[in-house]
Amino acid sequence: MQYDAYWSRAAHAMAGSAIRKMGTVSVRVPGLISFAPGYPSPDSFPWDECRAITGDLLAERRTSALQYGPTRGFAPLVDAIVEVLGTRRIASRPDQVLITTGSQQGLDLVARVLLDPGDVALVELPTYTGAITAFRDVQAQLVGVRQDADGIDLDHLDRTVAHLRAEGRRVRLLYLVPNFQNPTGLLMSRARRLEVLEAAARHDLLLVEDDPYGDLYFDEGTGPDDTRPIKADDTDGRVIYLSSFSKTLAPGFRVAWLVAGEALAAKLEVAKQAADICTGALDQHIVWQAIVRGVLGAQGPRLRALYRERRDVMERALRTQLGDVLRWREPAGGFFLWAALPDAVDAEAMLERATTAHRVIYVVGNAFFVDGGGRNLVRLSFSQPSPREIEEGVSRLAAAVHEELGAGARAGATGTGGASRGTSTPRG
Amino acid sequence: MQYDAYWSRAAHAMAGSAIRKMGTVSVRVPGLISFAPGYPSPDSFPWDECRAITGDLLAERRTSALQYGPTRGFAPLVDAIVEVLGTRRIASRPDQVLITTGSQQGLDLVARVLLDPGDVALVELPTYTGAITAFRDVQAQLVGVRQDADGIDLDHLDRTVAHLRAEGRRVRLLYLVPNFQNPTGLLMSRARRLEVLEAAARHDLLLVEDDPYGDLYFDEGTGPDDTRPIKADDTDGRVIYLSSFSKTLAPGFRVAWLVAGEALAAKLEVAKQAADICTGALDQHIVWQAIVRGVLGAQGPRLRALYRERRDVMERALRTQLGDVLRWREPAGGFFLWAALPDAVDAEAMLERATTAHRVIYVVGNAFFVDGGGRNLVRLSFSQPSPREIEEGVSRLAAAVHEELGAGARAGATGTGGASRGTSTPRG
Repeated sequence: MQYDAYWSRAAHAMAGSAIRKMGTVSVRVPGLISFAPGYPSPDSFPWDECRAITGDLLAERRTSALQYGPTRGFAPLVDAIVEVLGTRRIASRPDQVLITTGSQQGLDLVARVLLDPGDVALVELPTYTGAITAFRDVQAQLVGVRQDADGIDLDHLDRTVAHLRAEGRRVRLLYLVPNFQNPTGLLMSRARRLEVLEAAARHDLLLVEDDPYGDLYFDEGTGPDDTRPIKADDTDGRVIYLSSFSKTLAPGFRVAWLVAGEALAAKLEVAKQAADICTGALDQHIVWQAIVRGVLGAQGPRLRALYRERRDVMERALRTQLGDVLRWREPAGGFFLWAALPDAVDAEAMLERATTAHRVIYVVGNAFFVDGGGRNLVRLSFSQPSPREIEEGVSRLAAAVHEELGAGARAGATGTGGASRGTSTPRG
Repeated sequence: MQYDAYWSRAAHAMAGSAIRKMGTVSVRVPGLISFAPGYPSPDSFPWDECRAITGDLLAERRTSALQYGPTRGFAPLVDAIVEVLGTRRIASRPDQVLITTGSQQGLDLVARVLLDPGDVALVELPTYTGAITAFRDVQAQLVGVRQDADGIDLDHLDRTVAHLRAEGRRVRLLYLVPNFQNPTGLLMSRARRLEVLEAAARHDLLLVEDDPYGDLYFDEGTGPDDTRPIKADDTDGRVIYLSSFSKTLAPGFRVAWLVAGEALAAKLEVAKQAADICTGALDQHIVWQAIVRGVLGAQGPRLRALYRERRDVMERALRTQLGDVLRWREPAGGFFLWAALPDAVDAEAMLERATTAHRVIYVVGNAFFVDGGGRNLVRLSFSQPSPREIEEGVSRLAAAVHEELGAGARAGATGTGGASRGTSTPRG
């Protein structure tokens, strides 16, 4: 049976995630080293603590742990999240919080409640693919705003909004990942955050602030003052703030949350009723107990040390093996290193060689650009592979890049300037 | 801050679930006995087995149990579901199965992939509220088709489709709950199922067959032959079949699935990427082990006995206390008893008296009718309250109904014919 005639307009426009497709490659190629998915390290999961918690919850036969629960979320977890938000300098009340089935659901609900087909959603160039997918699936048009070293470029934002509004387009939201952005690893400066908030008010935009990585700063001069959410300074309810336990506890729980103005949180809750009724009860109970028992609090320093080491290993290996051809900015936190290949190298064209001949995979930059850019950029995740795998993976990547450069030279391709691009530009 | 100007058209049309609202009443009124939500009995949850399984999974530090997983679902669980489908006489392959975050997500994905704003979704009169919400949230128009004692009325279906198509409306799907329907408890006859499948082919409709209760037949002449899914006879991929572990293991896991033609399953998978990336990993692992270890298989007889007893208790109490005024059809399985009050009684108007003065709650029939009907009907769930609570709850309900009848008589309301409506009509 052919289903094409049955698809909705939204279904016609749906495209699978580039990163999810990488996952299928990983399964197909044995021994592949993957810098592709933004997965946390399983070494970071609090296995024993989760086992103790789950054993206790099920031994107590606490009905709420296995039953349907409120769409808003398990109330003690909502209360605990209000406390967590407090440590991030965000003042909130339980009726402003909605627990979501991963932050992806938060993005999806935001899209459905705020965007009509044809509306514009503003995103950074580049931006997180999950947001692209969520906004595209409601048939919004994504328009990109450039970044500089401090975050989103406000002049470009002003011009973009003015231009779109002059065309009569409806522009209601701007999506941002200020802390160790996916994919660039960029940390938006404090000054820029305040300017963005001011610009949002001026342009009457809602800000969607996605913060999965805020706790994963690598010290060395970068700390909680630098990751202070924009939401912490939002006095008029203009910011929808999303965060998650996927990176700090484990993604398998699918427990995340958002905080927004009361009426907005209530509308998003109604949208969630239709989406999945409620987030997993056992998962919410485990996360709640992980907060109450101090497991989450103990994760912070552990995770920061773990991921800092991996970043260091990756940077060292890149400097040694690709320092002459690759350019990147040192990430001060998070999971990602964002690197520019020489102009002669097309990261997408190189993917086949990298995966098949060298058994290493990355995400091509163009997955993150809504304007078609990024083909000589790669996102390298250092979060999941072990230090040893990172070293081996970078060796493989170097072999692929050097072969590609050689093939390009043989084919008389443009741009051999790669070797002159210089080495790592440590974050200043 | 006022958000009304920011809402999408979908958000403007969203309305909270009537049944979810009942939940907030339950919290507010201490000692309330609730016949409202279709919650399984916590006595039915396999607590000890889940504890053993979870302990083992976390002790093994099996990465996939806490990590992100494939959008399609954890592969060993998908394989196990293919086996489960086989026991229901449905032949399937893994690439036709999609694991969803509860069946509500399945309905939501179906709605997004198949319905554009203004399209018609056909549903039974009455139908499950979760389907109403999912279809309404994509701005589809819901059109109802009447039921008779054997299921959906095919003459009315034919006339409805013809009428809508003559008006130029796009009609692509028909949603059905053939087994112990929510809310009526109705079991569609085998003959009617085959006729529906034939009618779907004739009208070029996709059938969305929702089957959460199929395993919960009460024997006594009703068994697996009677609950055989329509999907079991679908040779051309016209049926999207949804089922769940929420009623057979526990709803707190949010693990359900759908099976559909390969291309349809693939499109629904892409839609799920945007919705929540993947269903909870630990939950999927627990369910998988519950199948592999025979826990699910052992649940069947236990659940059938448990819910049959509760139905019996409710029917006995209703016959004793309200046999002169209430009319219902004995459900041969599932969670629900669907009862008609005398015409003089408006179930919605009685709700305040029932909850406040008598501390008993039910769902008013009109929540399930897309044509505004059902105000003198009530859905009484016998699944969650204990037998003792069922007896007490029916006493309270009887007091409320008799007061309402008295008040109606005093106010000179129409229709005192209630007393002549006769008693229970056992399912023939």
